Amino acid sequence: MDRRSPSASAAGPLPRRSWWGWGTEDRALPDGECADLGALVPGAAGTPLPVPGIADLDMPLSRVTAPPSLGHLVSDAPEDRAGHTYGKAYRDVVRALYGDLRPAPDLVARPRTEREVTDVLDWASGADVAVVPYGAGSSVVGGVEYRAGLHRGVVSMDLTGLDRVLEVDRVSRAARIQAGVLGPALEDQLRPHGLTLRHFPQSFEFSTLGGWLATRAGGHYATLHTHIDDLVESMRVVTPAGVNESLRVPGSGAGPSPDRLFLGSEGTLGVITEAWMRLQDRPGHKASATVFFDGFDTALRAVRAISQSGLHPANCRLLDPGEAALAQVAVGGRSALVLGVESAGRPVDGRLAELVGLARDHGGAPAPAGREDSDTAAGTWRSAFLRMPYLRDALARMSVISETFETACTWDRLPLLVDTVRRELAATVRKTTGSEAMVNCRLTHVYPDGAAPYFTVVAAARRGSEVAMWDDVKAAATQVLGDLGATVTHHHAVGRDHRPGYDRQRPEPFALALRAAKQALDPAGILNPGVLLDPAPRPGATG
Amino acid sequence: MDRRSPSASAAGPLPRRSWWGWGTEDRALPDGECADLGALVPGAAGTPLPVPGIADLDMPLSRVTAPPSLGHLVSDAPEDRAGHTYGKAYRDVVRALYGDLRPAPDLVARPRTEREVTDVLDWASGADVAVVPYGAGSSVVGGVEYRAGLHRGVVSMDLTGLDRVLEVDRVSRAARIQAGVLGPALEDQLRPHGLTLRHFPQSFEFSTLGGWLATRAGGHYATLHTHIDDLVESMRVVTPAGVNESLRVPGSGAGPSPDRLFLGSEGTLGVITEAWMRLQDRPGHKASATVFFDGFDTALRAVRAISQSGLHPANCRLLDPGEAALAQVAVGGRSALVLGVESAGRPVDGRLAELVGLARDHGGAPAPAGREDSDTAAGTWRSAFLRMPYLRDALARMSVISETFETACTWDRLPLLVDTVRRELAATVRKTTGSEAMVNCRLTHVYPDGAAPYFTVVAAARRGSEVAMWDDVKAAATQVLGDLGATVTHHHAVGRDHRPGYDRQRPEPFALALRAAKQALDPAGILNPGVLLDPAPRPGATG
Repeated sequence: MDRRSPSASAAGPLPRRSWWGWGTEDRALPDGECADLGALVPGAAGTPLPVPGIADLDMPLSRVTAPPSLGHLVSDAPEDRAGHTYGKAYRDVVRALYGDLRPAPDLVARPRTEREVTDVLDWASGADVAVVPYGAGSSVVGGVEYRAGLHRGVVSMDLTGLDRVLEVDRVSRAARIQAGVLGPALEDQLRPHGLTLRHFPQSFEFSTLGGWLATRAGGHYATLHTHIDDLVESMRVVTPAGVNESLRVPGSGAGPSPDRLFLGSEGTLGVITEAWMRLQDRPGHKASATVFFDGFDTALRAVRAISQSGLHPANCRLLDPGEAALAQVAVGGRSALVLGVESAGRPVDGRLAELVGLARDHGGAPAPAGREDSDTAAGTWRSAFLRMPYLRDALARMSVISETFETACTWDRLPLLVDTVRRELAATVRKTTGSEAMVNCRLTHVYPDGAAPYFTVVAAARRGSEVAMWDDVKAAATQVLGDLGATVTHHHAVGRDHRPGYDRQRPEPFALALRAAKQALDPAGILNPGVLLDPAPRPGATG
Repeated sequence: MDRRSPSASAAGPLPRRSWWGWGTEDRALPDGECADLGALVPGAAGTPLPVPGIADLDMPLSRVTAPPSLGHLVSDAPEDRAGHTYGKAYRDVVRALYGDLRPAPDLVARPRTEREVTDVLDWASGADVAVVPYGAGSSVVGGVEYRAGLHRGVVSMDLTGLDRVLEVDRVSRAARIQAGVLGPALEDQLRPHGLTLRHFPQSFEFSTLGGWLATRAGGHYATLHTHIDDLVESMRVVTPAGVNESLRVPGSGAGPSPDRLFLGSEGTLGVITEAWMRLQDRPGHKASATVFFDGFDTALRAVRAISQSGLHPANCRLLDPGEAALAQVAVGGRSALVLGVESAGRPVDGRLAELVGLARDHGGAPAPAGREDSDTAAGTWRSAFLRMPYLRDALARMSVISETFETACTWDRLPLLVDTVRRELAATVRKTTGSEAMVNCRLTHVYPDGAAPYFTVVAAARRGSEVAMWDDVKAAATQVLGDLGATVTHHHAVGRDHRPGYDRQRPEPFALALRAAKQALDPAGILNPGVLLDPAPRPGATG
């Protein structure tokens, strides 16, 4: 069996992944552009932080070695360890730029079969070595960074070697897919079958199916099936207590759903190795439109009407004035609602007209020139969306805090939530950094009963104190969300960074149940310690 | 606070519930009609089994008494204990008709507040008394029948005293609802707000919100949100380890969903006391149509095309020739597809026309006279649907096995599954009862990746051996479903009767996790022992 990813062989070698920042090295902004960008933010540093070379950095010595039987899977090369030290949150990027590699894993393991996953877990369980499952490392919540300081060693288990679509059931529109496949390679393998998973998170290029499943990722689409959860038929998960393979059926009422325990388990209960996923026919009909609103609250009411209409737009993204201006979709202090509809087999113009009509009925002004302008607006926004993390990294180099967080709450609380977050964050930034923050908001997903607002904060920080300052801002955000009964995350997962908010919102009996489940499946306590739950006290190391 | 259910006070006293059979006593078929019905089944008994009087039956003495503080909540009256002994499966009805009340609970508790639920659990945990949470007792899988024989006593906890809608959020279209409310009383309380839960299982009149949640019930609607699971915003569950209240949000990605652990937990982890449920505007536009097919396989292909079209019909019920004839929807060996569309605010005729067009493209013949005839067919079918359990009971009195079971599998396996079930069941019935079975099939729910077939088996049994014979037939069905990778239940839950199939399909690591979670939440092992999991060995009784 040829184990090379078809997509990789078709497209030639991929550009090198950045070890410190988002995506690939070739797309990082050069120093001059970083400086130009920084100049737009009052109080930003005048020169970019240099990108350190890995060879120049102090990395702790590797404390463990794998047994010879696993030797071919593991690496202690500095570039592997450096690239697997952090996720890609703002605070991760800044720490990497400052050359702090203290949390580096001792080893990076790259299994290419499920058997090899099992072998690594077996060894690690006996050797008191923590295992951090690692898809493509796009976590923005400390999900792949070991911090427990309790184990004899730490292995980052990079799963991107499990990168193939193994089976396609065209009749049922489903496929059995290995969990380490990256978004583009997954879609490349489905395209010849006329099918798509149609799950496009912002991290699409640099995240894996298994990562999406483990973190309950949200896709690009705004309504109906927003999270990957709903696209799962069944999963295979390697736990230290055995392989968990759920039944592949379209629906079941037989006890609590096994998959729902592993969806969102973030590598704490097992390693997802493959899944049967529900697919869709590739859309042949698409249309989009942009509608402008003078007031954000008016726009919220329009979006609510749309979300409760049963029309299920593929896209229903509301940008507040700041967000709309940044994305060059709207100017003049107006909010912009980007609507999109798609269908494989049926024309969509009628549905789009209904949606625009609803928006107009609720005070919206559709973009004047119809299809072409609307498509341009949507396209402009999409390019900006994908470029955003690279701009974030460029700003980080200018000591500008540029970070996002997201949440969800019901419609009755939404206007208050958005207002409170804006006010509290601006106040905290002023107090913490002494500068004025830009706090923008968009809705990324909408439901009949509520929506998921996504906030962007940009503010100059004091060089050298960026992480501490951001942590203060984030703590204030978490406090507001908790006080108003909004979730600490709609689709970025919990990891280690969201633990305070998660611990507050998680019901205590469920915490007991989850802890008991983890103890049953991972008795040695090696799987991603500190994520979701506090690491269990160590038994005597036996390895 | 007036604790009487508004619906009960508005509609006057309800007809008396049958202690032995489905629904209310006034709707049970009289002896003559039972005999007429039995005469249609070759080999049926000539006279109906008499319905025993409770006073004439041997019921075991109640072994436990509640402490005085709970005295006002509990009853050991024979009619209470008899009515809470069984669910409403065929095998339950037959055992009741034969006067077998050995599994009767010692007490029936009727808490009217969450505090009273907690008090009963506290006492029972300390007294080694099993607690069987009981909504309205419509389980068809032994979900409310204690069989463990291990505890000092058994309490059936009847939750129908928790029957109120507590709060309505019109903006977010959601309501906080007590779990013991019956379907009609729930809808009565939502109607003044123009809202509906729109969850209509066949048991609607005789089942509760909490029962639907605990068993992952399936509603009447055929696509999209088929199970109650998707209608839940948050739940309150009283466990012996504390109250589990999940955050009320439209969506979240913060760890594994707490609600999904309790959905389908069937009273083994806690007692659901209330939930925030997602509601809908009451539909103002409805249309339906019936389409006939000469071959069932052809019809399956048409239904698959519809399920993958994104048109989301409210109803998409495919009846095979036997089922269609019984329901008087079609004659002449044709299958019938009943399609329905609904919307609160938008006309639906266009969507219905698209659906009928798809069916026609795949070989269907729409009912000739359009709307009126189609509505008649749909209406005829619905009346037959609601009357079905009463006919089942009448046939039970004639010693005719008349029972249903259901499953789900992906489209690729569906034709083979339906054929195999028909063949194996006919063979088993022939071997077991010596008579010919009628095995009919309909699809109750359809998904883009598969469907849920629902089978009805009618066959004369030997008087006195009905239960044993049905158990043989059911075992054969379970075997076929397991062999073909179909779920043991799509929406009837596991209870005790489905344990063999459930144990086979449930992944072993998940069983370990579930057992650990139960041990954490219900350390005394009192909650619905034997459902989903084997009861834990008893600690020394301390009560």
